[in-house]
Amino acid sequence: MSDPRLVIVGSIGIDHIETPTEKRPNLLGGSVSYACAAASFHHPPGMVGVVGSDFPEEFLELYRSFDVDLQGLQHAEGQTFSWTGVYAENMDNRETLETVLGVFESFEPTLPESYKSAPFVFLGNMHPGLQLHVLDQISAPKFVLADTMDLWINITRDDLEKVIQRVDMLTLNESEARLLTGTQHLIDAATSLLDLGPDHVLIKKGENGSMLFGKEGTYIQPAVPLANVTDPTGAGDSFAGALMGYLTQQDRCDHAAIRRAMVNGSVVASFGVEAFSLEGLQGLTQEQIQTRTDNLLAMMRVED
Amino acid sequence: MSDPRLVIVGSIGIDHIETPTEKRPNLLGGSVSYACAAASFHHPPGMVGVVGSDFPEEFLELYRSFDVDLQGLQHAEGQTFSWTGVYAENMDNRETLETVLGVFESFEPTLPESYKSAPFVFLGNMHPGLQLHVLDQISAPKFVLADTMDLWINITRDDLEKVIQRVDMLTLNESEARLLTGTQHLIDAATSLLDLGPDHVLIKKGENGSMLFGKEGTYIQPAVPLANVTDPTGAGDSFAGALMGYLTQQDRCDHAAIRRAMVNGSVVASFGVEAFSLEGLQGLTQEQIQTRTDNLLAMMRVED
Repeated sequence: MSDPRLVIVGSIGIDHIETPTEKRPNLLGGSVSYACAAASFHHPPGMVGVVGSDFPEEFLELYRSFDVDLQGLQHAEGQTFSWTGVYAENMDNRETLETVLGVFESFEPTLPESYKSAPFVFLGNMHPGLQLHVLDQISAPKFVLADTMDLWINITRDDLEKVIQRVDMLTLNESEARLLTGTQHLIDAATSLLDLGPDHVLIKKGENGSMLFGKEGTYIQPAVPLANVTDPTGAGDSFAGALMGYLTQQDRCDHAAIRRAMVNGSVVASFGVEAFSLEGLQGLTQEQIQTRTDNLLAMMRVED
Repeated sequence: MSDPRLVIVGSIGIDHIETPTEKRPNLLGGSVSYACAAASFHHPPGMVGVVGSDFPEEFLELYRSFDVDLQGLQHAEGQTFSWTGVYAENMDNRETLETVLGVFESFEPTLPESYKSAPFVFLGNMHPGLQLHVLDQISAPKFVLADTMDLWINITRDDLEKVIQRVDMLTLNESEARLLTGTQHLIDAATSLLDLGPDHVLIKKGENGSMLFGKEGTYIQPAVPLANVTDPTGAGDSFAGALMGYLTQQDRCDHAAIRRAMVNGSVVASFGVEAFSLEGLQGLTQEQIQTRTDNLLAMMRVED
């Protein structure tokens, strides 16, 4: 297998999820699972993460079915990271019932040699100290995207700011952007974040799409309107993973390419939330992706 | 003055508004005020509404400054309709402190002869019985848009459904669409509303833009991203007014024209919310509108 040109780092988890209509235990989850599966439709990624001794062989098979390179996957003694959550009626709000860090607590993302020259890197949501550790191992990255969450904004802001300074693009959701910058206004928040260093800031707004900010302008990406949302878990990770997969495939990281990558991210993520875990992405064909992409573009088009 | 080709009916109010940063009493408000001012940038409308004996002459002057035809404006003895409201910190939620119906309570929207042949009609938010009364007087409308609100959905659903059956387009906000159809999912809600009769359903989502549903497809219109929102009152009315002004100017009501009209609606409404009352629309130039339209289109554009 050739060296992966896209490396994705993040959490691997066993999720126990309850929605208003269904209860599903023991699902494959975690940021890197969603991101790698989603990226694979454009370019097969190399995965960096850790699983415990309880991690089912069938989940490894699932990764392989998406052509994910597993050289960077670590196997440790102990329990795999686990998340238990419940979604409220409108699917917008979720409550965490339990988080078990397990082997993720002592995770050190050491990259295989073959990963260190990767031009495209997605630092999934995890402790910013770990994200920095990954960055230190990449020799000459062309485009690095980092995700984060409210927890790191609250408890380890210094490390997070160091990450933000060193990446090409930061992605986070609307409320996190407000929390990190202390401003209600999204445009002001994006401007503050750009001032920290990255060329691009990508703010996720769930079913209301996402917005790209940068010196080459602002872009507004609508989400695919869906009649059926089964499980929104991992939507942001799938979105970012597909976006990075597209950029890697195109070997581009210019503003126009990022816009187009966001279309692809929205499309792939929309399939993901129509089922639990990776089930919405399993067996998905290029033709299905293309059809939905054409439909989304048609919904965005206007006479000039 | 020639017969108005666009007739707009609705409420005229004196608003007392408090935002997190400012308190402004005695502002010109009401759906027809915002809608007529916004429409005027594309086509001067004829206004149908009622004011009381306390209505300031300067507000009439303001209407005239927007080239609004006032033949349909009724003057009645008593107090003008009045609304007092407070916006919460995030400007998303507002609370009504007081509503005084005044002369609006016995309002009968009788149209001047010169209005009855208007091809374009916007039935602003008011009692559906009054909206039906207006429809009965229009001889051969080409395109009728109706707005509504939760109050009418709750207390006079039968009349509202009659209105919906008779118009070409229904507009309402996200939560109202859910309330009226009893479904959480926006696509299902839109489908149910289309089943009631109109060719188009336009769902407003505030700062998250709007969506057009119809048999010719779905269109997603982003709102203009704004750093400064001073007063969101009337945003939906300005949006709909500018949309109707554009269609009247173009003398079109096909799907492609409606998409383009939504761009214009978003742009004009964005100026409106940057100041209180009609202040954001006063003195606004075609050049300013064009520049912001170009900017918005650039934020929506993606390589195919």
